[in-house]
Amino acid sequence: MSDRMVKINNPSLEKQSNDHFHHLGITKSAIDIPKTYGDVKFICMGGSMTRMKNYAEIFARETGISISNNVSTTDRYVMYKTGPVLWVNHGIGVPSISIIIVELIKLLYYAKAKDVIAIRMGTSGGVGAAAGVVVISNGGMNGELLDKHVQYIVGQKILRPAIFDAEVYQQLYKVALELKIPAQIGKTLCTDDFYEGQARLDGAFCEYTEQQKFSFLNRLHELGVRNIEMEALCFASMFNRGNIKAAIVCVTLLDRLKSDQILLEHGDLDKFEMRVFKVVSTYIKQQLKLC
Amino acid sequence: MSDRMVKINNPSLEKQSNDHFHHLGITKSAIDIPKTYGDVKFICMGGSMTRMKNYAEIFARETGISISNNVSTTDRYVMYKTGPVLWVNHGIGVPSISIIIVELIKLLYYAKAKDVIAIRMGTSGGVGAAAGVVVISNGGMNGELLDKHVQYIVGQKILRPAIFDAEVYQQLYKVALELKIPAQIGKTLCTDDFYEGQARLDGAFCEYTEQQKFSFLNRLHELGVRNIEMEALCFASMFNRGNIKAAIVCVTLLDRLKSDQILLEHGDLDKFEMRVFKVVSTYIKQQLKLC
Repeated sequence: MSDRMVKINNPSLEKQSNDHFHHLGITKSAIDIPKTYGDVKFICMGGSMTRMKNYAEIFARETGISISNNVSTTDRYVMYKTGPVLWVNHGIGVPSISIIIVELIKLLYYAKAKDVIAIRMGTSGGVGAAAGVVVISNGGMNGELLDKHVQYIVGQKILRPAIFDAEVYQQLYKVALELKIPAQIGKTLCTDDFYEGQARLDGAFCEYTEQQKFSFLNRLHELGVRNIEMEALCFASMFNRGNIKAAIVCVTLLDRLKSDQILLEHGDLDKFEMRVFKVVSTYIKQQLKLC
Repeated sequence: MSDRMVKINNPSLEKQSNDHFHHLGITKSAIDIPKTYGDVKFICMGGSMTRMKNYAEIFARETGISISNNVSTTDRYVMYKTGPVLWVNHGIGVPSISIIIVELIKLLYYAKAKDVIAIRMGTSGGVGAAAGVVVISNGGMNGELLDKHVQYIVGQKILRPAIFDAEVYQQLYKVALELKIPAQIGKTLCTDDFYEGQARLDGAFCEYTEQQKFSFLNRLHELGVRNIEMEALCFASMFNRGNIKAAIVCVTLLDRLKSDQILLEHGDLDKFEMRVFKVVSTYIKQQLKLC
């Protein structure tokens, strides 16, 4: 089987003598990128800086692989490296994640990295999935209920497929079952806001009725949606363009068919977030033959 | 003149016995919100946590007003209070800023705050505005080149006006002139990504030519656009719905009609960011009669 190299599609970049990564604060000429990042096989991402640092530290401890310092020099994103695994936060929403994905793809392209898999490790609202259930995405859906990531480029509307790799999400699901962690495979609604976009009744503005909310959520459920978050479309489409397989593993913090307010018992959030880590870290260790 | 109270529009929220602000980590019943936040007159926001903390500390030092601890208990946003001025970061992009704006509007509504003005203090790419010029927005523009904030709510596409208050942006412009800080009033293109959405040639993907890039940027310039950032539409439309006047003051880090890579001299970024602070803090001190 031939190597799956990380790809870019930008003839201008090839002509550019140097490259500064605005949001990671890395300059191409300042480090030996192939030597430093050529071995990367997994990119683990999540919204929060603290959570990603925590995950990286636990992974390092569990595997005995050393952890790098935070290699990002800006305060927008953090990036840690434990051998062939990067741990990077992405903030909230598609615009925020789009920036760091572009910079990661450029970095791994310069690094000549190959056979890379990117996994988002997140939290989400369940749709007919109870708090604590891990949802593994088999497709993204946008606010118009289409499985497309929409971009506006030089005044044109561009639709891109939001594709997850079936082999990877099936493998992740199998790992969750082995670990006896409650898990479902399902579609993921990706919204541009947390309140109105997710039909919550607890925002500052709510111009729909409770009946309209539930009719919307039930429609999502019928379409196969099992959770709602804010990054899936871009995560799938951009990594797909970069020839990097993408998967999303999110734990649900509540079932939106039951409530809007996230009211977990003390310790539940940590416990739930660790379920995501266990599934993803076990999968990575299996793939890297570390266990 | 009657008081301009902060408004919400959500009958369900009135019926809810308590309210947990998911991303600030504040619970309504746990603090006396009117006593703590009823005096707020200005919300100053910017993308970066570090920058907003820095701005808050300088403002406190200059005015002799004490600064609160960070009152957010999550690692997604920070919020500092110096008397009647809040300093809050918003992350990158419309989805990220939409969350914190909703929570701020709810907070100030519960606080019975009135006559509040929200000012975003940002960085941006200039369009025919050189690095270091402060652009004060008189309108937002989306990727379809319309002055509308687009939301998808229960499956419907909703367009909202992105309105800035003319009195406030004219006053801010006057302050910049008094301080001899280079400034322009202009429209602001608000994009959902930093690379393709802004027609950059230095991303991982670039399926347009240099000629298409410049034809797009020149078209923006003809339409009155003077800078590009990633939050203006939501900032204008949501605060407008909350009966809070909105303004955006962004310094440009480069002129996109000249280049894509941000290559500032050492010290320039700090100097440019302080221009935004000087304009906005002087304006606030004038309004609060602190000078």
